[in-house]
Amino acid sequence: MKIHCRTGLAALLCAPLLAFAAEGMWTLDKLPREQIQARYGFDATPEFTQKLMRASARLAGGCSGSFVSADGLVMTNHHCIRRCIQQLSSADNDVAKNGFLARERAQELRCPGMEINRLDAITDVTAAVRSATAGLRGAAFQAAEDEQRAKLTRECRGADAETTRCDLVNLYRGGIYQLYRYRRYADVRLAWAPEAAVASFGGDADNFNFPRWCLDVAMLRVYEGGKPAAVRDFFRFQPAGAQAGELVFVSGHPGRTQRQLTVARLETLRDTLAQQTLPGLSELRGVLLQYARGDAEARRLADSTLASVENGIKVSQGHLRALMDPQLLERKRQAEGALREFVAARPELKARVGDPWADIERAQGARRQLEPAYSQLEQGQAFSSELFGHARTLVRGAAERSQADGQRLREFADSGLPQVEARLRATTPLNPHYEQARLAWSLYRMRSLLGPDDPAVQLVLGRQSPAELAAALMAGTKLGDVAERQRLWAGGAAAIAQSEDGFIVLARRIDEASRSLRKRFEAEVLAVENEAAQRLAVASFEQGGTGRYPDATFSLRLSYGEVAGLEDRGRNVPPFTDLQSLFARATGSAPFALPASWQQAQGRVNAAQRMNLATTHDIIGGNSGSPLLNRRGEVVGLVFDGNLASLAGDFVYDERDNRAVSVHAGAIVEALKTVYRADALLAELLPSP
Amino acid sequence: MKIHCRTGLAALLCAPLLAFAAEGMWTLDKLPREQIQARYGFDATPEFTQKLMRASARLAGGCSGSFVSADGLVMTNHHCIRRCIQQLSSADNDVAKNGFLARERAQELRCPGMEINRLDAITDVTAAVRSATAGLRGAAFQAAEDEQRAKLTRECRGADAETTRCDLVNLYRGGIYQLYRYRRYADVRLAWAPEAAVASFGGDADNFNFPRWCLDVAMLRVYEGGKPAAVRDFFRFQPAGAQAGELVFVSGHPGRTQRQLTVARLETLRDTLAQQTLPGLSELRGVLLQYARGDAEARRLADSTLASVENGIKVSQGHLRALMDPQLLERKRQAEGALREFVAARPELKARVGDPWADIERAQGARRQLEPAYSQLEQGQAFSSELFGHARTLVRGAAERSQADGQRLREFADSGLPQVEARLRATTPLNPHYEQARLAWSLYRMRSLLGPDDPAVQLVLGRQSPAELAAALMAGTKLGDVAERQRLWAGGAAAIAQSEDGFIVLARRIDEASRSLRKRFEAEVLAVENEAAQRLAVASFEQGGTGRYPDATFSLRLSYGEVAGLEDRGRNVPPFTDLQSLFARATGSAPFALPASWQQAQGRVNAAQRMNLATTHDIIGGNSGSPLLNRRGEVVGLVFDGNLASLAGDFVYDERDNRAVSVHAGAIVEALKTVYRADALLAELLPSP
Repeated sequence: MKIHCRTGLAALLCAPLLAFAAEGMWTLDKLPREQIQARYGFDATPEFTQKLMRASARLAGGCSGSFVSADGLVMTNHHCIRRCIQQLSSADNDVAKNGFLARERAQELRCPGMEINRLDAITDVTAAVRSATAGLRGAAFQAAEDEQRAKLTRECRGADAETTRCDLVNLYRGGIYQLYRYRRYADVRLAWAPEAAVASFGGDADNFNFPRWCLDVAMLRVYEGGKPAAVRDFFRFQPAGAQAGELVFVSGHPGRTQRQLTVARLETLRDTLAQQTLPGLSELRGVLLQYARGDAEARRLADSTLASVENGIKVSQGHLRALMDPQLLERKRQAEGALREFVAARPELKARVGDPWADIERAQGARRQLEPAYSQLEQGQAFSSELFGHARTLVRGAAERSQADGQRLREFADSGLPQVEARLRATTPLNPHYEQARLAWSLYRMRSLLGPDDPAVQLVLGRQSPAELAAALMAGTKLGDVAERQRLWAGGAAAIAQSEDGFIVLARRIDEASRSLRKRFEAEVLAVENEAAQRLAVASFEQGGTGRYPDATFSLRLSYGEVAGLEDRGRNVPPFTDLQSLFARATGSAPFALPASWQQAQGRVNAAQRMNLATTHDIIGGNSGSPLLNRRGEVVGLVFDGNLASLAGDFVYDERDNRAVSVHAGAIVEALKTVYRADALLAELLPSP
Repeated sequence: MKIHCRTGLAALLCAPLLAFAAEGMWTLDKLPREQIQARYGFDATPEFTQKLMRASARLAGGCSGSFVSADGLVMTNHHCIRRCIQQLSSADNDVAKNGFLARERAQELRCPGMEINRLDAITDVTAAVRSATAGLRGAAFQAAEDEQRAKLTRECRGADAETTRCDLVNLYRGGIYQLYRYRRYADVRLAWAPEAAVASFGGDADNFNFPRWCLDVAMLRVYEGGKPAAVRDFFRFQPAGAQAGELVFVSGHPGRTQRQLTVARLETLRDTLAQQTLPGLSELRGVLLQYARGDAEARRLADSTLASVENGIKVSQGHLRALMDPQLLERKRQAEGALREFVAARPELKARVGDPWADIERAQGARRQLEPAYSQLEQGQAFSSELFGHARTLVRGAAERSQADGQRLREFADSGLPQVEARLRATTPLNPHYEQARLAWSLYRMRSLLGPDDPAVQLVLGRQSPAELAAALMAGTKLGDVAERQRLWAGGAAAIAQSEDGFIVLARRIDEASRSLRKRFEAEVLAVENEAAQRLAVASFEQGGTGRYPDATFSLRLSYGEVAGLEDRGRNVPPFTDLQSLFARATGSAPFALPASWQQAQGRVNAAQRMNLATTHDIIGGNSGSPLLNRRGEVVGLVFDGNLASLAGDFVYDERDNRAVSVHAGAIVEALKTVYRADALLAELLPSP
């Protein structure tokens, strides 16, 4: 039985109140057990979800993964470790192009700065945060929340920052606060990555489409004390996969959805997307496309960034299309109107929550005014440069570490320092020519967006042109050297004050103005929105209880759904592709060129093996790398994408056309066996009974 | 007395019915003589407007100009002749960088393919067009209108296509049809162009801003029989300029406004701008910015295109901001509602006009479906290449010239053939590397927009990648050679059929599909919109008479207004800038670097000389190069831009912040005298009494 929302008038009534069908990114403690039972006859017991929790993994940089062997083997997407692949590459060995396979564990290569987390425990701390922020608004509210976050996470973590990590997770936009305690693995090594040409077969052209043919998989291994970590809980592989209509689960870390935003906030989001985000990403795509037309090394450098930028463009396009769809905003307006009426009719509730909608709407005026300079200067969009990032970390880190933990800028709280230091230590080879090109462009764009007479622009550029400043910064810097960064970090405020490195000088020069933009933006925009959202959550709980799922927050969620094709412009698209159609689609020209390993294996592989599959899961960015699991908790696939329609999922879910896209477990096994002959890895994934 | 529209509720009542203040791009036969008299005490007599008409000029490529001497000297903007400057430049002499001055007439250089028009007569032909199209809808309506256009313009032009040109001008979107007969000058030569660095001082950073400091002027001369053309009517220079508050006129050729579009059409326009136009232009900007980071020759090539692209980006941003402004659409909705009610209350009128709004709204569904492929394939966005343009002209020209005049594609009508042939003959030096880079990019963008499985994409690319196809096309082509183009044009269908030039083969291969897209788009979208617009015009005339001005159509219009500063974010901006502040703003870095000529002249020039000025005129793209005239018909300035607020002028005019920006006549004289020592030109502009 399928119940469709979003069709006709009924949608306006049912949609805001209850989640139907496969909708929902559920926290593990609030799984809709009855709904799943009713629809699929399966009981998702606490034991089942506990197992899912302990065998799931999170890549701290923004992806999902899963443990797939007792020896700490972690499966994720190839596109989730693009940065590691770039770091392990050089002009002599392009790992993206050639792929990588450690035939024995000693050959596994460390991914600089990569961190993997496994969720171990969840504790509710709503009462503590509520009492600390009670009655506060604006900046005072935000400061109190920040202080509580620092205190709670510090206490949760205890002494062992190396192996324990605690995050304060805000669910329902202020409705519930929980502490998530993670086992932290900071020694992560690459075991296997196929060639990018087959991992991202079809490239940007096929991205967010189904049918699809990608081997978007990579295997990492977490280490403890220099040895592969022993893990108790992991998922077993099921190469047979799942059948059409079969119930399957996705356990992963969706990064962010915005389904609980008010209409006023969605409107500024839409305007920013159309007027700044999408044009900015498009311009950068042009720069990178032209840069890649240089020699092979230029292509290698640009291609890696290009993949992320083009992905960002498709996502922005999908969001913009959704927000420019008058029906979507109308539906949101109706839901908002219903909640307003609900509050207005209850004086006691009205007294408690006030008019959060009006408060958020007012904050949008400040947002429109402050956001351009804030995002350029403080969020660093003006500085598309790894070195500037290091310079800012060093300049701010020196100042912030002399403050008490709860008083610091959030990213320098004690709980975050291990990651900050790991990034500074990461040995990423930098190409100065490429770095300079991106920096010159981003400075140019800053001037173009804010205008040459803007105080922030004057402060950054002085009388130099963007190209001149970029050249001057690159000419004298030593920040590409890890030792120099370590020296400045260790040297603290005195070392920073003495440095004449251009990047450090720039970061120092703009620091006061940049902090002041942040202070205003946080006080006049973010704090107002967040505090009002908390009151909205109160109203919403009164209206509908907590039987809903919260917006995604890069914390562990479970989605359920089924293997299903879809109808696309009148055409029936079946739920599976196979290896035969992969070879048929290969033209020999990127992004439809198969690597040599696959061309050579064409006669040997099982052409009927299913390759990718579509499911109805409600997922979003951050879910990349999630395992697709059957009722027995076996891996039947690896989520790597959604279709175009799924991009609207930031704001709404529609089971009719929203699809998640996964690599079939059998395709991974077939590739390891027949194409890569990775016998050791295969034996680890499929141990003899 | 100033009457403000668009403030509060009153705006909704007054705006749609009457034009107030300086609003309006008036045709010369419908000037609001009483309004001007009432506001400024000046009588714009028929003699006054006749003089304006005969001394005004139009650059057929899309700008305005004016005759400023009896010897055929034509003043326009530097940015209007960018293409000519590029054509006259080479790696050895970059005319954009170095400027150009013919110290005697024999040194004047012909601008390849440039055409200047002077309006000589206007004839109303509404009745003829109406009777030919009576009762027809859709494609039949369009075919009948096309046939009438060919017939009327052919008859009007007579035998002398070399010196006479006739355009069918459609005013009020189908309300009135007129034949405009022009004196055509096809031998146009460059007399003076300053360096681009001072012509476009401030570059894209300052574009569409005021205050401003640009010497955006160029002098051309039209020739007849190899000699400077003698003209009877021309404007005299008035170096003293005009004072704040003074009544001044702009006589020029605004290209296109969209003030009469329905809300449904404005919404598709907004969505296309946000989702396709602005991202596409931004991406091209990125490509060009990165291309320009090559050597000096690469910079020269890219910079010229970049200026147009960046201008297009600012225009698109302005349009998008206007169309995303909920107040603007609400105002349009109110006006539309009022007209609908007016029609609904009059059964006889209702029977005549039907429901044009619904027809236009239905056409928007077809537009959304067809426009992407139509604009890529038929409008040629997929082929950012001069050579492909030639190839298509040759392939289609061969087929079309064998048809009767009225049956051809519009651009191959007899009346247009001289321009078509002039473009084929133009000796524009092409850089194959640059051509290939742009082509590879535009093919890539086509695939990205339409998807790799789109039939149009498959037809263009086959199994090649965009970069491979671009390389293959450039490798074998001879279309860069004028003689080869002439041979193929003269050889007609047989020569085209035999050609193995890659571009010709491509143009042939896609021709059928491309024509079929055009046929559908014209029948299902354009013809429906145009025919419905004619019925809208009937309703609108009944409601408000013809006392309004029509949307701009690149035909001659008169705007009146006054010299005025403005308030910008709480700051009072005076109406003039001067040379002193130009020198103060110069940093030495592009786009704020003055050329050597100005640096050397700094001590000599009159620093108090006014440089640019702002006026309240209602202008739009196409008005560039228009003379700014005082009551005596003397040149007091040269329009070259509007401010950011003026970009909303495509849809509405707001006297509060809409400003036109001009070069002061005195600044032109001071530059010619002190910086360039152009004595002969100066004597021609300011003859001794």
